[in-house]
Amino acid sequence: MEKQKIKVGITQGDINGIGYEVIIKTLSDNQLFEYCIPVIYGSPKVAAFHRKMLDIQTFNVNVVSNVSEIHPKRINMINCSDDEIKVEIAQQSQAAGEAAFASLEAAVKDLNAGLIDVLVTAPINRKSIENEQFKFPGHTEYLEQVFGSKGDALMLLVNNGLKVAILTGHVPLSKVPELLTEELIIKKATTLNSILIQDFAIRKPRIAILGLNPHAGENGLLGVEEEQIITPALKKLDQKGIVCVGPLAADSFFGSGHFSRFDAVLAMYHDQGMIPFKSISMNMGVNFTSNLPVIRTAPIHGTEYEIAGQNIASEQSFRQALYMACDIYFNRLQHKEISENPLKKQLVDRNEKDITIS
Amino acid sequence: MEKQKIKVGITQGDINGIGYEVIIKTLSDNQLFEYCIPVIYGSPKVAAFHRKMLDIQTFNVNVVSNVSEIHPKRINMINCSDDEIKVEIAQQSQAAGEAAFASLEAAVKDLNAGLIDVLVTAPINRKSIENEQFKFPGHTEYLEQVFGSKGDALMLLVNNGLKVAILTGHVPLSKVPELLTEELIIKKATTLNSILIQDFAIRKPRIAILGLNPHAGENGLLGVEEEQIITPALKKLDQKGIVCVGPLAADSFFGSGHFSRFDAVLAMYHDQGMIPFKSISMNMGVNFTSNLPVIRTAPIHGTEYEIAGQNIASEQSFRQALYMACDIYFNRLQHKEISENPLKKQLVDRNEKDITIS
Repeated sequence: MEKQKIKVGITQGDINGIGYEVIIKTLSDNQLFEYCIPVIYGSPKVAAFHRKMLDIQTFNVNVVSNVSEIHPKRINMINCSDDEIKVEIAQQSQAAGEAAFASLEAAVKDLNAGLIDVLVTAPINRKSIENEQFKFPGHTEYLEQVFGSKGDALMLLVNNGLKVAILTGHVPLSKVPELLTEELIIKKATTLNSILIQDFAIRKPRIAILGLNPHAGENGLLGVEEEQIITPALKKLDQKGIVCVGPLAADSFFGSGHFSRFDAVLAMYHDQGMIPFKSISMNMGVNFTSNLPVIRTAPIHGTEYEIAGQNIASEQSFRQALYMACDIYFNRLQHKEISENPLKKQLVDRNEKDITIS
Repeated sequence: MEKQKIKVGITQGDINGIGYEVIIKTLSDNQLFEYCIPVIYGSPKVAAFHRKMLDIQTFNVNVVSNVSEIHPKRINMINCSDDEIKVEIAQQSQAAGEAAFASLEAAVKDLNAGLIDVLVTAPINRKSIENEQFKFPGHTEYLEQVFGSKGDALMLLVNNGLKVAILTGHVPLSKVPELLTEELIIKKATTLNSILIQDFAIRKPRIAILGLNPHAGENGLLGVEEEQIITPALKKLDQKGIVCVGPLAADSFFGSGHFSRFDAVLAMYHDQGMIPFKSISMNMGVNFTSNLPVIRTAPIHGTEYEIAGQNIASEQSFRQALYMACDIYFNRLQHKEISENPLKKQLVDRNEKDITIS
């Protein structure tokens, strides 16, 4: 399978945060043109403002009116904003919210039409962006509505050696216990297993399932959900041939480094997964909205107003997000090809050279 | 104030885990005799078994029948176990549970009588130790019953640059929201503030208070406890002159390293505090049962059956626990002296030399 260059749609996010800084820093590396064609859904004026503030001499964009006009060796930009738009560093503003939404809407439209291959989103300010069409906790739920049904998307945090999926996403902590069911665990663990195979080319994934309660319930002393819900779900997953281990006490699991023995971890709720992921990754890593027909990744950080406009933001997480979106795109394509032509499997080119898969 | 040597009571914990390994490794360093006099509540036979298994040539204990007989320059041991007791590495056994409880009971009795100054506990196996007198989730609740009332003790995890206190301890996750009250936050934050002053010699502590929900509730979108309970509590704490900042989103707080700007963090529930502490400390650090009239510390790890008997356990956390117990003892003594004689405050010897406190 010959690698084709991937059209990467990039939203500008909140123009008053560090979004443009990490976009500009990432796209200033010409190497990426070997892998992909970037298309920013943004504003040439805002990009120029940030370029000057970052004291970068050259960051030329090829302004196009639609994807059919993009240049394969240039940074392309589709103008989604009013030319009168003003950047107000570190300020929450309605104009910035409108610009963030216009960018997202245009990119998602093109993604839906197959004009771009993957989507990488810069961080938004949740308060600024809220409007009649966007009343979601974040990108994940918005994309889920556009490309699937409620509950389809699986939030997956990815960094070197650590993948964490979140069972119950953006909900109040008090709602978590009632949302926890055997069916949900089986559904999400099965999804996670498929994603590890399809999007990360892991042939036989090993998944760690965390407990809900302190010490994973300590045999019923600190909660019954492990015995009544999680363990029965694990038994059924085992019968389905999915390799799961748990329920594990979350604190010692992460503290001991045992996560390195697993391909992914299924956390029961947002903070149980996000806290250790961020603590271990220290603002590195990627947020991948998995289990949708489209591919969207994002950096792990937010708009970071407190360091905006100071040229001190690291673009590493955004760069990881961009390359990971491309990797996932290829893995998914390859997996599709193998699945459709199982007899050809031995001839598939993996890791840039021919190998025989036993 | 001349430093006196502190009598440190050490429980043997579960004899089938790594307890004796970390005790022996810690006490093999003669330097500690400059600061303290160790008294192990254990079994000479079991200690000898572990010494041989660890291939350590000399670990001589001074077996005494009570604290009045201890030698200031030796490792003292009070025999609390039947001489027929057998070590079964990595096995959960009733005999080990009985031995762990006998050790704890004897040490606590001496602590209560003022015969030892501080208590350092080796890890127990919760299942093995359970009996009519011990039906608690852990040491913390047992000590709370002996030395105070339910709810008195504040679990504090301490490592270099990071102190995490837990608001609601060993309870099922589903009980956390109903336990969260303005009063409890005010009580525990006030306690934490006093402990930082009294036990850690921090003159004006800065405390970070976490939110309960994802993104600290995202302005009510992901939960109301921040607006209804935590923020009002913070206002009252501010009126009391206690420096608190919050409610903060737990994941980005730890991921960004912002915790280093604070003297301590108050987490709303067990895993919200334990997960980042262990993830960041990687099995280092100390568990300090604070706000009791007595001082008890413990290593952050458990019995670690999976590595027991292999001579690969690190004693660092246990060593930290031992030295921290001594430090806290001195700080508390010094604080008491300053409080009782405020006019003498300028003359107090801090950090080994005379300084003038402004």
